[in-house]
Amino acid sequence: MLVSRENHPADSVIKVNNTTVGGGNLTIIAGPCSVESEEQILNIARAVKENGATMLRGGAFKPRTSPYSFQGLGKEALNYLSIAKKETGLPVITEITDVRELELFDDIDVIQIGARNMQNFALLKEVGKSSKPVLLKRGYSSTYEEFLYSAEYIMAEGNENIILCERGIRTFEHYTRNMVDIACVPVIKKMSHLPILVDASHGTGKHELVEPLSLAAVAAGADGVMVEVHDNPDEALSDGSQSQTVARYAAMTEKLRKLHEMMKEI
Amino acid sequence: MLVSRENHPADSVIKVNNTTVGGGNLTIIAGPCSVESEEQILNIARAVKENGATMLRGGAFKPRTSPYSFQGLGKEALNYLSIAKKETGLPVITEITDVRELELFDDIDVIQIGARNMQNFALLKEVGKSSKPVLLKRGYSSTYEEFLYSAEYIMAEGNENIILCERGIRTFEHYTRNMVDIACVPVIKKMSHLPILVDASHGTGKHELVEPLSLAAVAAGADGVMVEVHDNPDEALSDGSQSQTVARYAAMTEKLRKLHEMMKEI
Amino acid sequence: MLVSRENHPADSVIKVNNTTVGGGNLTIIAGPCSVESEEQILNIARAVKENGATMLRGGAFKPRTSPYSFQGLGKEALNYLSIAKKETGLPVITEITDVRELELFDDIDVIQIGARNMQNFALLKEVGKSSKPVLLKRGYSSTYEEFLYSAEYIMAEGNENIILCERGIRTFEHYTRNMVDIACVPVIKKMSHLPILVDASHGTGKHELVEPLSLAAVAAGADGVMVEVHDNPDEALSDGSQSQTVARYAAMTEKLRKLHEMMKEI
Amino acid sequence: MLVSRENHPADSVIKVNNTTVGGGNLTIIAGPCSVESEEQILNIARAVKENGATMLRGGAFKPRTSPYSFQGLGKEALNYLSIAKKETGLPVITEITDVRELELFDDIDVIQIGARNMQNFALLKEVGKSSKPVLLKRGYSSTYEEFLYSAEYIMAEGNENIILCERGIRTFEHYTRNMVDIACVPVIKKMSHLPILVDASHGTGKHELVEPLSLAAVAAGADGVMVEVHDNPDEALSDGSQSQTVARYAAMTEKLRKLHEMMKEI
Repeated sequence: MLVSRENHPADSVIKVNNTTVGGGNLTIIAGPCSVESEEQILNIARAVKENGATMLRGGAFKPRTSPYSFQGLGKEALNYLSIAKKETGLPVITEITDVRELELFDDIDVIQIGARNMQNFALLKEVGKSSKPVLLKRGYSSTYEEFLYSAEYIMAEGNENIILCERGIRTFEHYTRNMVDIACVPVIKKMSHLPILVDASHGTGKHELVEPLSLAAVAAGADGVMVEVHDNPDEALSDGSQSQTVARYAAMTEKLRKLHEMMKEI
Repeated sequence: MLVSRENHPADSVIKVNNTTVGGGNLTIIAGPCSVESEEQILNIARAVKENGATMLRGGAFKPRTSPYSFQGLGKEALNYLSIAKKETGLPVITEITDVRELELFDDIDVIQIGARNMQNFALLKEVGKSSKPVLLKRGYSSTYEEFLYSAEYIMAEGNENIILCERGIRTFEHYTRNMVDIACVPVIKKMSHLPILVDASHGTGKHELVEPLSLAAVAAGADGVMVEVHDNPDEALSDGSQSQTVARYAAMTEKLRKLHEMMKEI
Repeated sequence: MLVSRENHPADSVIKVNNTTVGGGNLTIIAGPCSVESEEQILNIARAVKENGATMLRGGAFKPRTSPYSFQGLGKEALNYLSIAKKETGLPVITEITDVRELELFDDIDVIQIGARNMQNFALLKEVGKSSKPVLLKRGYSSTYEEFLYSAEYIMAEGNENIILCERGIRTFEHYTRNMVDIACVPVIKKMSHLPILVDASHGTGKHELVEPLSLAAVAAGADGVMVEVHDNPDEALSDGSQSQTVARYAAMTEKLRKLHEMMKEI
Repeated sequence: MLVSRENHPADSVIKVNNTTVGGGNLTIIAGPCSVESEEQILNIARAVKENGATMLRGGAFKPRTSPYSFQGLGKEALNYLSIAKKETGLPVITEITDVRELELFDDIDVIQIGARNMQNFALLKEVGKSSKPVLLKRGYSSTYEEFLYSAEYIMAEGNENIILCERGIRTFEHYTRNMVDIACVPVIKKMSHLPILVDASHGTGKHELVEPLSLAAVAAGADGVMVEVHDNPDEALSDGSQSQTVARYAAMTEKLRKLHEMMKEI
């Protein structure tokens, strides 16, 4: 397989504008679950930029269990992301949910494939034809092998800029929304040359668990984390209970940076 | 919700050409995992038609874990299905995996959404705009609630012709490919007015378990079964080990029909 | 292995007093989750006896998640079971939870090992030294192989009178208490010569699902069912929501008997 | 509940001979899966003592899936553990599997209740009557709530010296033997005052994954780790593939100690 380490012993380093993912860098992707307004995304973008983020996240097209839940602002959100990008210089990442949306992603720096679409092979092939970096999330009941085969669908089409992301799997335990599988990090590192991040916001569904799980991810060798930050979690239109406040996020990021430095020495 | 029984107390009966699904009928959808050639699909179509099938299945666009596995014959397979339909009079069902394929499905009678795409909301919305019957398979780690919400995505767009299908969920037990959740049948019947079938071929991954699980499904109140039949399972291009021979299928179908009649009397 | 069908091609038939389990008989074990009083168990015993039960169940030593939940009446309950047995002639089954309790089980006809103790090997060995029939429940996250190895622990000590019982496994779906794995029936039948029952009361946790799942079990080839019946489910000291009323139980049993007869003919 | 933090806001610190578990200490329990001979346990005991272990583990009574697998040396192993304890000064921990074995544990410092016995309530009550520290492992499909209720069974009998241990849960992924649930650490810390360790040897089943998962555990706030070490993993009588060599263990322990110190500063 193209994604296997056997085939490519050195770690892949993915260039995203002025930043890189993998290769010893600590990537911190932060931002709201959904882009809710220009003001909201700008406020959060400035705050996470000041506090160590290397990339800005924000959902435009939201895959929601119910058709009656807030579905995201769509194109409008893409525009707001562009504005936030111009203002802060942060590369932006947002999720694609439909092959026909790709043409709207011109100013987006990283295209995210969400957990529900990890085996949406038509979508994988489509982003594989692009040269834009793709962040591929693990499906919530997908094996490591299936995860890597999905990355292979993208790479087989020619796009080598793939970032993997563990975001929790589904188990019998419902205290947390999902269960972060930290072993995924060293296993994927062994099997593949691709960088891997951990999203503990979706992975736990509880803001107070994001820090310990993100620290665990970095200690286990993850190339970074993805984290939901909201300037007002209690009024977020989606996933408020798993979003960190800016203050909480800032404190966590400082710890993550220190831990990441320390891990190089031990 | 539109799909809920509260909202629509009577069972929905879905008309598919000259046959109906639900309403006390026993639906038997049979055929190969993949359409492999005109000869193959014609042979199997004739055989299942003679042995009680009410619909012919056959994969054209195959969602495969690996990009290097046989991906189906695509458009060519759709043509072969049309020929088999003309010859046998059986309505045909095949899976859609890409919103852009829909225009090719004109002569297909039922559009299948597979387990991996149960939460491919763009695809759900697209088939929801069609008036063709849709068979929606439960994702292999989806809850009943998520299953029904995905049906709701289709119905909210205007398409009321939805057939549900339980096809096994993923658990710790790997002796079987998946684990058929028979409780799904009475639970969905209670929650929703839509008909529900059981696919024990994918549900077990073992041809010798298809009969006992299909009998169980009918005893529990399922509106029918979906079953993989191959004229030469050992040489099938996909899923051979879970495909029944024609003889085995014929014997099973006879038992299912008898059981279905008996269940009305007890 | 002693329990494997390879080693013993014919079905084992387990004699329990005046009744037999396996060998084409339909075993119906019915009774309350817990024995609550002499009057309660006598009332229920008479009612289930009149309505087709072949054995009476009733918990004396209850394994409860919390130490503060009702733990069963213990020895007192064993006495009440003896009285109910004398009055109705039904063999009685109750669960053992401690190797030191075995001496109290003299008048009990079948010793039950519950799901939580499926791998309590000390207990398995202890009942293996007895000659009393043992009903072994599958652990709620145990594989088929582990299930049979636990039976092997009993048989390796000399006790061949083993009845297996599937009672639902734990999955991500929490609408039901557990998920009844109907495939367990034909798989165990293939692998082993031991009879197997299905307990849909624990398997679903919902009284309205006990009938469809029990019917499914019999259609799939189970040797019988285990079912919780209470004369007043709403006031049961344990598991009320999964207990059937006597009337509901009686109606179900009649259907099960008819189905079981029919299955021999198809 | 007695084990809940509400009831006891300060962290519990468990004294084990000359060492303490919890309270900011890093506990490292190391040793072979099974005690195989006096020489083996002495060799390993000396090696782990020299390399930062605070306690020696070694199985005497082994709960094995198959009755035909090596069941441990029993009493003989307890003697060898005593000898190793005398020689190295390390407190020793070994698993109990039968209420009747407790009297043999006089010279054992910590009694382990294994995952399979987490809901063996008779055993929990028995060790609850002792005053010896108990290490309680989480069942491989047990919820956090069930885990704490099992600890409550012990404490309700009067024994407050309880150490919890996450050792991996069972999921659909079989690349690893189990899946280490790192979230268990901060969740249990929030809910309870008891110390919690992580056993990444059982948790992953692969020796090369023990280090990254143990590091993750410490980063997430665990009070220590439990780890299988063998002087000759390839010839271990049980669990060889998940056992670290002494050299590998030594390197890991050094990293764990450094990380633990650093975590206090960040």
